[in-house]
Amino acid sequence: MTTETSLAHGRSYLAIPGPSVMPDEVLRAMHRAAPNIYSGALIDMMPGLLADVRRVARTKHHVAMYIGNGHAVWEASLANVVGPGDSVLVPSTGHFGTSWAGMAESLGVTAHVLDFGKRAPMDLERVADTLAADKAHEIKAVLAVHVDTSTSVRNDIAGLRQVLDAADHPALLMVDCIASMGCDAFEMDAWGVDVAMTACQKGLMVPPGVGFVFFNDRAAARRAEMARVSSYWDWTPRAHADSFWQYHCGTAPTQHMYGLRTALDMIHAEGIENVWHRHEVLAEAIWVACEAWGKTGPFELNIIERAHRSRAVTALRLQAPYATALREWTQSRIGLTLGIGLGMVASDDPNWHGFFRLGHMGHVNGQMIMGLLGGMQAGLRALDIPHGEGALDAAAEVIARG
Amino acid sequence: MTTETSLAHGRSYLAIPGPSVMPDEVLRAMHRAAPNIYSGALIDMMPGLLADVRRVARTKHHVAMYIGNGHAVWEASLANVVGPGDSVLVPSTGHFGTSWAGMAESLGVTAHVLDFGKRAPMDLERVADTLAADKAHEIKAVLAVHVDTSTSVRNDIAGLRQVLDAADHPALLMVDCIASMGCDAFEMDAWGVDVAMTACQKGLMVPPGVGFVFFNDRAAARRAEMARVSSYWDWTPRAHADSFWQYHCGTAPTQHMYGLRTALDMIHAEGIENVWHRHEVLAEAIWVACEAWGKTGPFELNIIERAHRSRAVTALRLQAPYATALREWTQSRIGLTLGIGLGMVASDDPNWHGFFRLGHMGHVNGQMIMGLLGGMQAGLRALDIPHGEGALDAAAEVIARG
Amino acid sequence: MTTETSLAHGRSYLAIPGPSVMPDEVLRAMHRAAPNIYSGALIDMMPGLLADVRRVARTKHHVAMYIGNGHAVWEASLANVVGPGDSVLVPSTGHFGTSWAGMAESLGVTAHVLDFGKRAPMDLERVADTLAADKAHEIKAVLAVHVDTSTSVRNDIAGLRQVLDAADHPALLMVDCIASMGCDAFEMDAWGVDVAMTACQKGLMVPPGVGFVFFNDRAAARRAEMARVSSYWDWTPRAHADSFWQYHCGTAPTQHMYGLRTALDMIHAEGIENVWHRHEVLAEAIWVACEAWGKTGPFELNIIERAHRSRAVTALRLQAPYATALREWTQSRIGLTLGIGLGMVASDDPNWHGFFRLGHMGHVNGQMIMGLLGGMQAGLRALDIPHGEGALDAAAEVIARG
Amino acid sequence: MTTETSLAHGRSYLAIPGPSVMPDEVLRAMHRAAPNIYSGALIDMMPGLLADVRRVARTKHHVAMYIGNGHAVWEASLANVVGPGDSVLVPSTGHFGTSWAGMAESLGVTAHVLDFGKRAPMDLERVADTLAADKAHEIKAVLAVHVDTSTSVRNDIAGLRQVLDAADHPALLMVDCIASMGCDAFEMDAWGVDVAMTACQKGLMVPPGVGFVFFNDRAAARRAEMARVSSYWDWTPRAHADSFWQYHCGTAPTQHMYGLRTALDMIHAEGIENVWHRHEVLAEAIWVACEAWGKTGPFELNIIERAHRSRAVTALRLQAPYATALREWTQSRIGLTLGIGLGMVASDDPNWHGFFRLGHMGHVNGQMIMGLLGGMQAGLRALDIPHGEGALDAAAEVIARG
Repeated sequence: MTTETSLAHGRSYLAIPGPSVMPDEVLRAMHRAAPNIYSGALIDMMPGLLADVRRVARTKHHVAMYIGNGHAVWEASLANVVGPGDSVLVPSTGHFGTSWAGMAESLGVTAHVLDFGKRAPMDLERVADTLAADKAHEIKAVLAVHVDTSTSVRNDIAGLRQVLDAADHPALLMVDCIASMGCDAFEMDAWGVDVAMTACQKGLMVPPGVGFVFFNDRAAARRAEMARVSSYWDWTPRAHADSFWQYHCGTAPTQHMYGLRTALDMIHAEGIENVWHRHEVLAEAIWVACEAWGKTGPFELNIIERAHRSRAVTALRLQAPYATALREWTQSRIGLTLGIGLGMVASDDPNWHGFFRLGHMGHVNGQMIMGLLGGMQAGLRALDIPHGEGALDAAAEVIARG
Repeated sequence: MTTETSLAHGRSYLAIPGPSVMPDEVLRAMHRAAPNIYSGALIDMMPGLLADVRRVARTKHHVAMYIGNGHAVWEASLANVVGPGDSVLVPSTGHFGTSWAGMAESLGVTAHVLDFGKRAPMDLERVADTLAADKAHEIKAVLAVHVDTSTSVRNDIAGLRQVLDAADHPALLMVDCIASMGCDAFEMDAWGVDVAMTACQKGLMVPPGVGFVFFNDRAAARRAEMARVSSYWDWTPRAHADSFWQYHCGTAPTQHMYGLRTALDMIHAEGIENVWHRHEVLAEAIWVACEAWGKTGPFELNIIERAHRSRAVTALRLQAPYATALREWTQSRIGLTLGIGLGMVASDDPNWHGFFRLGHMGHVNGQMIMGLLGGMQAGLRALDIPHGEGALDAAAEVIARG
Repeated sequence: MTTETSLAHGRSYLAIPGPSVMPDEVLRAMHRAAPNIYSGALIDMMPGLLADVRRVARTKHHVAMYIGNGHAVWEASLANVVGPGDSVLVPSTGHFGTSWAGMAESLGVTAHVLDFGKRAPMDLERVADTLAADKAHEIKAVLAVHVDTSTSVRNDIAGLRQVLDAADHPALLMVDCIASMGCDAFEMDAWGVDVAMTACQKGLMVPPGVGFVFFNDRAAARRAEMARVSSYWDWTPRAHADSFWQYHCGTAPTQHMYGLRTALDMIHAEGIENVWHRHEVLAEAIWVACEAWGKTGPFELNIIERAHRSRAVTALRLQAPYATALREWTQSRIGLTLGIGLGMVASDDPNWHGFFRLGHMGHVNGQMIMGLLGGMQAGLRALDIPHGEGALDAAAEVIARG
Repeated sequence: MTTETSLAHGRSYLAIPGPSVMPDEVLRAMHRAAPNIYSGALIDMMPGLLADVRRVARTKHHVAMYIGNGHAVWEASLANVVGPGDSVLVPSTGHFGTSWAGMAESLGVTAHVLDFGKRAPMDLERVADTLAADKAHEIKAVLAVHVDTSTSVRNDIAGLRQVLDAADHPALLMVDCIASMGCDAFEMDAWGVDVAMTACQKGLMVPPGVGFVFFNDRAAARRAEMARVSSYWDWTPRAHADSFWQYHCGTAPTQHMYGLRTALDMIHAEGIENVWHRHEVLAEAIWVACEAWGKTGPFELNIIERAHRSRAVTALRLQAPYATALREWTQSRIGLTLGIGLGMVASDDPNWHGFFRLGHMGHVNGQMIMGLLGGMQAGLRALDIPHGEGALDAAAEVIARG
């Protein structure tokens, strides 16, 4: 046998927190010639497409679509409601909260960051205190990340709304659902979210390239008061397009529209609540396995409390250099790619090799998760990384219950 | 026979000025599972990809990539060099020139529009006069559309540079090459262009979703002087990415990168000068046919002078309601979709039905153009639209000479 | 410009008599993972698939499917009704008639060939005389090619049935519809055909790999009398499958089933009679162009009488070496591939370069045919091949009438 | 939650013994327009394709390709070397051995079946006795199945050759490698196999539709002596094609050739010996898990001795109705399709529900096998099927060692 010998030649599994595994049906739907952009199927599908994406966000309000990624919709949503001189409050629970704050700053907005570290959700009392102190209502918006993909913490958005209401504070509640929508339960209208945003490459199961900003009438009213919104970011014509070109302020991402149509069909055929349930059970299978591995040795879930964990991404700690070694082993030896750690330490810190993440979002089922966990088990053994017993049986037990 | 009888059932030909006909190779390259975004083929291909796209623009300078369409790169390029309070000069030769000016205004920039109508290129003398009058050098940039897709006029960019030089005016020369790059000869460095931009869905033959901003060191210096550039539009980290995520300020449009790689391979295998030559000959075939049809009756090329015509899009005039009738006939009867007229009159003006356009950009060859023209000839006859004789033979003659 | 300069870089058009141009929808339907072969969509689609393919053949009788090409179904159909020692009559009108006779001989069957040359349909009187002379009814079957792809002659199958009936001869009427089904009108039941066969890569618009044998109860009775039929060729279990594996005597061509499903949906959505009409009009467009080119110079249709011409393939004569030169020019210069001549002279005869063919079967529409003819016109001019005038205008006129 | 709730929505895993999981690269390569069949890439690739498929079979001799499945190459291979009145010896170890014998009978060949049951390999001594008794050398060929897909037994082909040699018997050694080639080690030349055959949809990782017959000069000599071989099955022109059409006796399965090219590239890039090693390790992982489950309760491997087990398919016994219940649970609940039992009992026997099979052939890697086994473990628990402990950990241990 040459050194090329491995057990990796087969269907790769990209278990990273986005881009997620794309359904074959979605890729097939996108493999098509340039369509007619004046009339016909593509034009006709737009209203239904926007209605169905709103059903995923659980909102009856407005949605603007953008060619772009998560960062694009961060900037797009900010650009419609805040501008130079405005202030926002950012209760941060990880790399992405901090990054969004930085983006606001780049727009001339003052971002007040409440940093809750990397292993806990936001402390709503501290948020309440801060809002209470803002007597002048200088804070125009609260920027909350539902699930911070770097830490895999899940924040209590409904609770945050209650804090705003209790404080009688008029700031808009803006929520980044990039890593949660279509995975973890999210109720835009019921929870009183004013602006929410997501991108298509995670729970929506479409190759990266399209994002969405959802907004309610309160947010629209704020937009109307803005002195100036750039015509590209302006959500108004996108959400209320008279002509096809207005949905995307120019040429549409034509193939993506077909992919999105197919993905939404799949989601609603399953039922969004069933989708949430599936993510919940699969996440629990991952948790019980990781908790078992952690009974002995350095394996540790980044978020200790189950109630605060994302059901779409799991950040893990595995004493350096074990995490990197495990990722490299599963990729090169058995066809399984795990996610790198993000934002926990600097990338040139040797401890960087002690963090990794699992993506379990969108198009994932029971046999995939058993392959993910079974592959990790093999890697832990191959590399002699100390770990507790019983992980796989425990996970299978959760999946057996369904 | 039922009323469904038609000769349209076959391979459709979308002869509109973008999105253009995509090569099967490009679509195939994009039909792939989500790739590894940490290491491997996708990461490794990026430097070569950017080098090869610069070769299409004929520049040795910088390029930033954006998930987006033509409007996105309009805004991106402006956002890096002008801001609220600045002025730009926009010599407009059609709908897109005017629209770009409008986008500048939405950013708080004052846009001085020189309107040269819809049937002629910019008058360089008038531009020279305007620049000469700007003693204070308040004009920070000249925004020129190389080919205005609505009118199909082609402007003299090298000449415009000479005007700026002659005036010794420091304004940046910014050129929209969306409808020309990869079709009509364009020499960013040799012509002295400071900022150029394009999108992928025309001459670059990739489904819509990615755009490019090229900029030289003068433009980079202007960027460095800006008080603030939003982190999403900032071209600096995109053009000089240390990490993969920086190329796209977040998640990359992974599938598009593979499509782009394939398209660039095709372009450079043919040779960019050969690509330009092909567009030139095919455009001439279209011109001689259109000129022949125009000898009798209402058929007319929007741009009279060949020297000012785009080789990628042709705007035509055909007395209302003939243009619309012809488009509808070719689409429903023989599988050929022609482009609508754009920006010539209001869309509720009955004369709107007197304009249409042909796209002949990117992945087009001799037999396709003969199918386009032959289909139009059939439509003119079917609808009894008066027209001159000899169009197809004249076009075949041009193609025969190659 | 280098010698690489050409106008060929664009979407290629393969205008050969099979494999024909495949609809994107069909290719997309086939791009799928291996499906479940025990239950679910694939199993459930089979009865409808066979019913719909029978609708194309216009028969209410039986159909057996084979993984294979036209030659496979030639042998399959023979193997079910004739064996060593039997005789068949083969009125041949081209290369394929003769080849089918050869295949019968390879099975130990005596094939009496009536050779009607390469430019005319079968002479039914001579067939009648031969049958009348067969007092002992030693001829077990008459093997007729509906359209011989090599000569493009179209035979009168209904007339042939009348000859058999008039002779009160019990021979089975077996018809090769490989180049005609889904293109030229064919009525298996109404015309009294006992066995018909076709393959999927021409009028059925599916990549090569599947063929069909249709048979009625008379043929089934003949099968029942056979001493032995090989289990692979036996049509009985295939036509009356109890289990999924029996449809294909083993593993099914799973992806092809999805492609076929899509193609049949397209055919029946258009309506089979409309499909025939489309082929008829497009063939006429080709004929008038070819007749015009033939007014001067060496260009000649192989079949002089329109009544005897196929509407799916056209064999042409163009004094050697013009035919080959034209094919090479259109392929290398403008992206159009024409079919080689077949079976007219030996392939090492210099006159071989004087024959070529056009395929116009299946997924073809008006604009494609104008591209085909326009491309040929350009080639005739480029190569200075003498030809008559007015071809393209005449063709456009036919297409205009629709 | 509705009754629709399941954990199945994700990427399905078809773990049946063929068609196997197809690489995305193969499917992508097949998604292409009809190619030029006269010249160019497709024609040029044929010699290399055949050379590379011979490298998989480990033979320097001849190969004929057939559009067809395993049954097609069974019949094709027989048709070239035996005919009515001939005899063959069939040492059968399962459903497929018996079926192949039946196919020989349908060709008029007398098949002497030595039935070794369903749980053991052939007994070479009994074969030796039978050959010794055939003084007149009436047996023209020995038909051996390398791996019988129904029982998952693996026979000793090299040993069988020794038996033939020891008996000095001239019968051809013909070996069905349909379920083993590209999975289990097979050495056509080194083992002295005269005729071998396979199909593309298992170890070769290409959608069903193409099969191969490999033959050496001894077999070719036998072919030359045959009174008659049907022109479709004749392997001579296919193996020594002068023209492209001869490779497939008519129209080529054009898209399949591209898929096959890609699959062979993947196999040889990995190295055929590495491919065998991968199958060996993954099979062992499955075996240790199955052996663990079998320590308690009804779970049982059909083949007791590891030395006689296939490394590509595993037949299992699980007291009725458990096997069917498990298959239905994994398919509907977690997206995993297991293979049905085949040929163990009649399909209307209630015990039919006590058999099932796993396919682990071709494009399979370590994480997939852990998903397969983990999914089975979940099913055993969900259905309360008695089983031993430690299966998953044991399998992970094997994979960890690589």
